[in-house]
Amino acid sequence: MSNAFDHPWLSGIFSDDEALQIWSPDNQLKHMRAFEAALARALGRVGIYPIEIADDIADRIAAFPVDLENLRRGSATDGVPIPALVSQLRAMIGENSDAVHKGATSQDVLDSALALTLRAFNVLLHARLTELSETIEDLSRRFGNHSLMGRTRMQAALPITVSDRLRTWSHPLQTHLKRLDQMRGRVELLQLGGPVGNGTPLAPHTAEIAIEMATELNLGSASGSWHATRDALAEYANLLSLISGSVGKMGQDICLMAQQGVDEIGLSGGGGSSAMPHKQNPVLAELLVTLARFNATQISGMHHALIHEQERSGAAWMLEWMILPEMAKATARSLSAASVLCAQINRLGAAPPQ
Amino acid sequence: MSNAFDHPWLSGIFSDDEALQIWSPDNQLKHMRAFEAALARALGRVGIYPIEIADDIADRIAAFPVDLENLRRGSATDGVPIPALVSQLRAMIGENSDAVHKGATSQDVLDSALALTLRAFNVLLHARLTELSETIEDLSRRFGNHSLMGRTRMQAALPITVSDRLRTWSHPLQTHLKRLDQMRGRVELLQLGGPVGNGTPLAPHTAEIAIEMATELNLGSASGSWHATRDALAEYANLLSLISGSVGKMGQDICLMAQQGVDEIGLSGGGGSSAMPHKQNPVLAELLVTLARFNATQISGMHHALIHEQERSGAAWMLEWMILPEMAKATARSLSAASVLCAQINRLGAAPPQ
Amino acid sequence: MSNAFDHPWLSGIFSDDEALQIWSPDNQLKHMRAFEAALARALGRVGIYPIEIADDIADRIAAFPVDLENLRRGSATDGVPIPALVSQLRAMIGENSDAVHKGATSQDVLDSALALTLRAFNVLLHARLTELSETIEDLSRRFGNHSLMGRTRMQAALPITVSDRLRTWSHPLQTHLKRLDQMRGRVELLQLGGPVGNGTPLAPHTAEIAIEMATELNLGSASGSWHATRDALAEYANLLSLISGSVGKMGQDICLMAQQGVDEIGLSGGGGSSAMPHKQNPVLAELLVTLARFNATQISGMHHALIHEQERSGAAWMLEWMILPEMAKATARSLSAASVLCAQINRLGAAPPQ
Amino acid sequence: MSNAFDHPWLSGIFSDDEALQIWSPDNQLKHMRAFEAALARALGRVGIYPIEIADDIADRIAAFPVDLENLRRGSATDGVPIPALVSQLRAMIGENSDAVHKGATSQDVLDSALALTLRAFNVLLHARLTELSETIEDLSRRFGNHSLMGRTRMQAALPITVSDRLRTWSHPLQTHLKRLDQMRGRVELLQLGGPVGNGTPLAPHTAEIAIEMATELNLGSASGSWHATRDALAEYANLLSLISGSVGKMGQDICLMAQQGVDEIGLSGGGGSSAMPHKQNPVLAELLVTLARFNATQISGMHHALIHEQERSGAAWMLEWMILPEMAKATARSLSAASVLCAQINRLGAAPPQ
Repeated sequence: MSNAFDHPWLSGIFSDDEALQIWSPDNQLKHMRAFEAALARALGRVGIYPIEIADDIADRIAAFPVDLENLRRGSATDGVPIPALVSQLRAMIGENSDAVHKGATSQDVLDSALALTLRAFNVLLHARLTELSETIEDLSRRFGNHSLMGRTRMQAALPITVSDRLRTWSHPLQTHLKRLDQMRGRVELLQLGGPVGNGTPLAPHTAEIAIEMATELNLGSASGSWHATRDALAEYANLLSLISGSVGKMGQDICLMAQQGVDEIGLSGGGGSSAMPHKQNPVLAELLVTLARFNATQISGMHHALIHEQERSGAAWMLEWMILPEMAKATARSLSAASVLCAQINRLGAAPPQ
Repeated sequence: MSNAFDHPWLSGIFSDDEALQIWSPDNQLKHMRAFEAALARALGRVGIYPIEIADDIADRIAAFPVDLENLRRGSATDGVPIPALVSQLRAMIGENSDAVHKGATSQDVLDSALALTLRAFNVLLHARLTELSETIEDLSRRFGNHSLMGRTRMQAALPITVSDRLRTWSHPLQTHLKRLDQMRGRVELLQLGGPVGNGTPLAPHTAEIAIEMATELNLGSASGSWHATRDALAEYANLLSLISGSVGKMGQDICLMAQQGVDEIGLSGGGGSSAMPHKQNPVLAELLVTLARFNATQISGMHHALIHEQERSGAAWMLEWMILPEMAKATARSLSAASVLCAQINRLGAAPPQ
Repeated sequence: MSNAFDHPWLSGIFSDDEALQIWSPDNQLKHMRAFEAALARALGRVGIYPIEIADDIADRIAAFPVDLENLRRGSATDGVPIPALVSQLRAMIGENSDAVHKGATSQDVLDSALALTLRAFNVLLHARLTELSETIEDLSRRFGNHSLMGRTRMQAALPITVSDRLRTWSHPLQTHLKRLDQMRGRVELLQLGGPVGNGTPLAPHTAEIAIEMATELNLGSASGSWHATRDALAEYANLLSLISGSVGKMGQDICLMAQQGVDEIGLSGGGGSSAMPHKQNPVLAELLVTLARFNATQISGMHHALIHEQERSGAAWMLEWMILPEMAKATARSLSAASVLCAQINRLGAAPPQ
Repeated sequence: MSNAFDHPWLSGIFSDDEALQIWSPDNQLKHMRAFEAALARALGRVGIYPIEIADDIADRIAAFPVDLENLRRGSATDGVPIPALVSQLRAMIGENSDAVHKGATSQDVLDSALALTLRAFNVLLHARLTELSETIEDLSRRFGNHSLMGRTRMQAALPITVSDRLRTWSHPLQTHLKRLDQMRGRVELLQLGGPVGNGTPLAPHTAEIAIEMATELNLGSASGSWHATRDALAEYANLLSLISGSVGKMGQDICLMAQQGVDEIGLSGGGGSSAMPHKQNPVLAELLVTLARFNATQISGMHHALIHEQERSGAAWMLEWMILPEMAKATARSLSAASVLCAQINRLGAAPPQ
């Protein structure tokens, strides 16, 4: 354990438990089994296997305790965990084991598992964006008519109200909710293309199977596979970074407002210093800036991953694995830290004269 | 003149004339005057000035020959060209010169001018995306039933049809058209916030004036200013890079197909070598990869610019000026080069046996 | 556990055990204690505390079993683990506990601990660069006189020898060794600046204490603190990405050589496919490209972290914590995977006619 | 003309005339001719051509007025200007025209021309770094003993002296000068590899010719070509961004010091506002931040360009053309703007009590 999100003590700063749970390996594994189970079940629905056999296989896959060490060794050799997983599943199923993973490829499993994770994460994002909006709304109710020096180019300009400033924090959140809504259908999508993405091995039942699976998994069903067209994932990463960027602007503002000499905000929490016990550091506000710049850095990698060779690029695909989950965790933490930070505000601007 | 798009000879590779025209300083200047003219006219419409006077001022502003050298000197001092421009306009108008730029700030002018440029550029993007889609569609008609070796992880996998491959080139373009459509309303927006973004100097007529101006300029009218909330511009940059990224995937595929030993494509053009006259280089295909990686690099800067201090960040705003126009020019060139490249294809895959 | 380097199965692909050990929290903690111990010991050496007392304190600090959960909670509040760590240490020491962390600040501890990690990692880098160079040298001995088609702009150009190609893989490694040598003195540096970086609390003994500590910790001693001047760390990140980039070029070449129709290389390992058992995927070669693009993405964040406000930027500093360790782990994996990959090569180019 | 450095009015903000001159197309063209002339001359020195003929050819090449429009058309077709340039030169030379560009390739010319530009730019960088150091030294003489509130995590911590703060501005400049010195030999290098980089067409005279040419051009002579090993250019870009990043930290500090309520600095210049004539904006300080973030963004692209396929990657090479010159111009402007800004400082910190 050593990256910022999973670290024994840094996780206290960077981690968001709900996001970690959604992106956990356990959850990935559950989604991978769910894909294989849904495929088996669909093979029964469309008549390729007797429905009782297919359902039985599906049930056993869904409940199967995967050998993780074997999965790790398989990943080291194959570059993906699926060949090892399928071997384990087939060995467990025994008779009719050819129904396991039939007509599918590794990318079908991993991308569909990702889509399931994104669906769960989208629910979290929606809730968090809404919660933060409401927290800011509440600030506006409490302090909105207070006055603040409007500052442009870091120079005092003309007085504004606290509501004016808060609007620059909350308005983008509303637009992000709209963007999320417009985008969900582009990412919460089943992947089912088979080895080279054209669905041939399951033909002529491919579309029918895809619809069955998508229904069971509560995903959308694309008109074809998205093995090599990763624009929706880059767009997703973009939304994550738009969110953390908007929240980062709020963090930067709070850092600036909390400066001695400016003194436009009061915060009830704040971090201590090992050398200066008197000092209160606006740690969460700084964190919002850090997470915004982290995502602003990562977004670039997701766009490079668009240049995906032929039917499947191992190199570009693996780059997504390294980057997208970290961006999601950073975004979730950004939203939860922002809500906590807003709740710590006990003074904002100057009250109007009575 | 020395950057790739404006360079005496590199422009032959990197430039797209229509995009250069849309993003030209001349056009910016025209849009800046259009803003100031529309503001003057609106002041008449809402009754702050007599309508004939306001219209006369507007007409004179729209036709005013700006002194560019003065604008350059003013920009050097002020960090923006608008104070110098406004001085020139006021000197020219004489009586009633207080109607010029009344209640507005530099960012209102520059951002609205940008919105006008984006509107024009969106029309170009729409046309180019449609054109490239049709060009690929035409390839599909000519070669779609030819066979091709499907390649995953850069290894031969199983045969596919040319149509299967072409679908990975064209399908994202359709989604980009949809994204463009969903996004236009978020960027083709008038900016009118005044010095600190809250529209105070024109109150209580601010909203009314904004609607008048937006109507005249054929822009949308936001419910407030977007001085410090730049999410729509980062989203715009994202779409640009999604487009060049999708087209870059096509370029990468063509480079790979054109390799000796693979030989899945025939191209009628292609670049010459100074050392090997026999060699035909797939220059345009490489260029698509270059432009995709250029934009994938730049997108990061636009996301960092989201962290916009207080009511206006000079630092973040100037970063947009350096990056966004270059991304747009790269994207336009990506689309035009891709269309030319597709038209050069005279062989694709292997014809089915008769 | 869920990022690529620590993941239950993805670690099989992305992890390098030696690098993980060097960058482990255990190791960080050991380094943090080593700093505090060295400080206590130095306070004795310079006569601020009796030497026996100072040494006893130092020994007890070095052996202290830190309460990690307390450290996590402290980090959550303070944004750094050091206030909690110092509290634990002072409670443990009891009498003379004012000698603990005397005159130091959190950043002194964390940056010095990082410097110790970098020193260990530099030894690993040196060994890995040397090992990979030798592995390529060995390839050159075995296959160097074989012929290969030289390819420029992805097109066959003129024949070259395998040695010609191998030189483009190995030559940069030699330069990287030189760069590492030139840079080590700039990063393997004690940090001792106190709360605001100027060393005041330990004056007039600051320089003397720093030299004592640096000697004990086997670090260099800067003429002042580097709290707010992070150029050496960005330079370090640059070297990491130069290394993975050079190795990524090798990976890209191998992917291209392994293509059917090109067929210039034979590899004894290679990954299996869940759908096509006949297929051998050059997984490690792809991985080298992935890791190169990962680091090429991250380097940008380290450069943004140069913009460090005043005496200490929490936001910029935390960004380093998120990025630098991951870059190091990616680089180590890049080098180890490249050595394994080279050892798998059993055919390269075409043997010269007998 | 429309990018920030060449723009009719934005150039007032972003441009540095000396840098623009060094990176001008005119200068590139002069360097390209210088390469071809030096090659012809060297062919005489090593006895391939009679020395008088070779010298005559060289003189005529050096003086040749290139047809730029033809170069642009050639670039559009070939992806590089050299085939067109060589055609023009050969047509001009007539008899013995086979001595023109003999054994060389486009990349030899363009990379050597770049090396010549870098050599000139390094002289500028050295002078600018030295000048800025001296300007800061002068500030230290004038204000060094003044007091300032030391600020960590954007919070007032403990008093420091102005010298303490200035040290964080100037110390990295000294290290950059050292880095520049260590690096110059790695980039001021002749390129002479021929079509596939191994120097074959000029064998057995390749090394001898390279030494002749390097001597005449005042460049170093590598032991082989660096067509496909671009680490020195990425390292160069890194130094550029380290410089602008260090200077950006200074800009950020000045922005923060110039805030009302903090008021730790007085600046004699400063930008005007179109809406608030009373306001003085620290435009140059903001610009330093912008340029730092611009380069921190671009550096990523130069690292992606390390992944250079085989003997020459058109895609990666063209990416360098788009990015490196802009980074250099941004860095030069950063240094010149910083010197101007420092000279504008007329108050810094609080004078000690008499």
